[in-house]
Amino acid sequence: MEWKEDTLRILDQTKLPLTECFLDLKTMADVIEAIQSLRVRGAPAIGVTAAYGMVLAAKSIITSETATFRRQLRGMANSLIAARPTAVNLEWAVECIMEDLQNHPEIPATDIPKRILEHARMIHEDDQQRCKAMAENGQELISDQSRILTHCNTGYLATSGMGTALGVLFAAHARGKVGMVYVDETRPLLQGARLTAWECTKAGMPHTLICDSMAAVLMQEGKVDGVIVGADRIASDGSVANKIGTYGLAVQANYHGIPFHVAAPLSTFDAQLSSGESIPIEGRDASEVHTVMGRLQIGPDETPCWNPAFDVTPPSLISNIITEAGIFNAPFDTQAILEAIEMDRLGKGIFD
Amino acid sequence: MEWKEDTLRILDQTKLPLTECFLDLKTMADVIEAIQSLRVRGAPAIGVTAAYGMVLAAKSIITSETATFRRQLRGMANSLIAARPTAVNLEWAVECIMEDLQNHPEIPATDIPKRILEHARMIHEDDQQRCKAMAENGQELISDQSRILTHCNTGYLATSGMGTALGVLFAAHARGKVGMVYVDETRPLLQGARLTAWECTKAGMPHTLICDSMAAVLMQEGKVDGVIVGADRIASDGSVANKIGTYGLAVQANYHGIPFHVAAPLSTFDAQLSSGESIPIEGRDASEVHTVMGRLQIGPDETPCWNPAFDVTPPSLISNIITEAGIFNAPFDTQAILEAIEMDRLGKGIFD
Repeated sequence: MEWKEDTLRILDQTKLPLTECFLDLKTMADVIEAIQSLRVRGAPAIGVTAAYGMVLAAKSIITSETATFRRQLRGMANSLIAARPTAVNLEWAVECIMEDLQNHPEIPATDIPKRILEHARMIHEDDQQRCKAMAENGQELISDQSRILTHCNTGYLATSGMGTALGVLFAAHARGKVGMVYVDETRPLLQGARLTAWECTKAGMPHTLICDSMAAVLMQEGKVDGVIVGADRIASDGSVANKIGTYGLAVQANYHGIPFHVAAPLSTFDAQLSSGESIPIEGRDASEVHTVMGRLQIGPDETPCWNPAFDVTPPSLISNIITEAGIFNAPFDTQAILEAIEMDRLGKGIFD
Repeated sequence: MEWKEDTLRILDQTKLPLTECFLDLKTMADVIEAIQSLRVRGAPAIGVTAAYGMVLAAKSIITSETATFRRQLRGMANSLIAARPTAVNLEWAVECIMEDLQNHPEIPATDIPKRILEHARMIHEDDQQRCKAMAENGQELISDQSRILTHCNTGYLATSGMGTALGVLFAAHARGKVGMVYVDETRPLLQGARLTAWECTKAGMPHTLICDSMAAVLMQEGKVDGVIVGADRIASDGSVANKIGTYGLAVQANYHGIPFHVAAPLSTFDAQLSSGESIPIEGRDASEVHTVMGRLQIGPDETPCWNPAFDVTPPSLISNIITEAGIFNAPFDTQAILEAIEMDRLGKGIFD
């Protein structure tokens, strides 16, 4: 992801792993399309993309009358936030920017785009640092020659840094600790097969691709030392919304007594939600299940499909949540989680 | 499946659901290819196909010298049995035929093909009756407006009759008892999406296709009243080898307190095996995971894949095993299972 001359350049993830194709996003509409079509995905990456999207939004506003400008920007911010409902980082990044502007009513319309760009750049760099810290913090949970199973994609492609869950594994690999990474293909959109396997090959990390339905047998055969996944939104009780299939994996890990780790930055926590039940779950088009990547129809024309993009794993099935600020261990303490979110909010204070 | 003028006509299941294409198998090699390429699949259907394959084998033997004929036939029987290792019905059908010939050494070479054809026809018809009985027996486990989840394909396409697990659901649908059938797509070869969904549309049975990774969330949401699957081989302790993904489903059903039913004819039981550990599990080509149906590559070229075609579910996770002779309820009694197999073997005695 790169910002250059009023353009956000991204790698089109829908084309991976067979084609590495870059896209130039020049308008907020381009950004919304890229987020909705999953050309860019992964909660932290969506947050950073949306921050730059706010720059493009601000640049598109014609008026120099500050109140009108700010009102129009608020409308555009709402459109951006509505692009995808589950990953809270999207809302987080946009509201960080809006809050800063609200705290500085003296900034005139003409200076707002520049102010937002500075803020977006800081969010971008900040995300990279959070990834590094998470990867470092997670090391105590990964022992030598670990065989770790992961789901969906949580690496360089899902963040603007080295990743969340996959970042922990990259750091472990750099220390020679990774015996094997088992990569769930992650139907329907195959982010594991297409993106995580691609990142593993790039990093030279030993990995094996499996269908989602094979994870339980690997566990039964004693081949999995731990599971690590990312998150799209975490409630203050430790409930984790993540890619569909995460909950089933957590149930299976629990049955086999295998630790189940989540890695996510504090920007993925939602202090407003006290439990997983109120996390909004995005239902995506049935065609994603009815076909493979829109290119191969697998079910009969008449067959209805169900396609929730995420599921919610209750805290009782999670062993640890790795963040940039440290590790929360089960059983999770809501008060400690809320304090960490608040400390982060205050400590970050990018501009203030 | 239809035998006509020295030819076995089958529906090529690899082409479903988009194309309904019939294939004429004229040699034993054709039969082996059809079984290995999954043009015909499903444990009972493989058994019936192999029985007709034995007719084609016998017809291809040139000598009229009976000892030589029988020796050559034994060799061909072994080749047929080796076509696929997990479904015991294949071996069962072939050995039924060989045992009958062994019990009748007086039958001359020239009469053997006719004898085998009669036997194959009886195995064929017998399978249809077993399906009906299973479907009937299973009804007591299906209550009104049931929402049932199933995996892989176990209907008309998997047997020569109305099916095993899906047969139970067809019979329930005929009685107006089916609220919804949730169909796991069943990666890698998508027998759920391609075959079960196709059978459901043909039968007008309410169904919804899901990715394998979505089953757990359906259970979490209270939308699944029971799970029903077929089997490829059942050990005498009640361990069930079935399509990969079955074990994971059983773990999830167990966690949610949802009954987990297996439906299989007694020909799927293996009296020689006292536990699931010794059931041979077929490992199929990595390309099945690395692509979708060989037509769409999903992982990077360099990525290794793991592809076990089956898994073994321990008896502790199974609520009931529905057979044509009645229902075994958990905890399973090995002695009762062995007796049922033996009674069936004696009772069936197709020729003797």
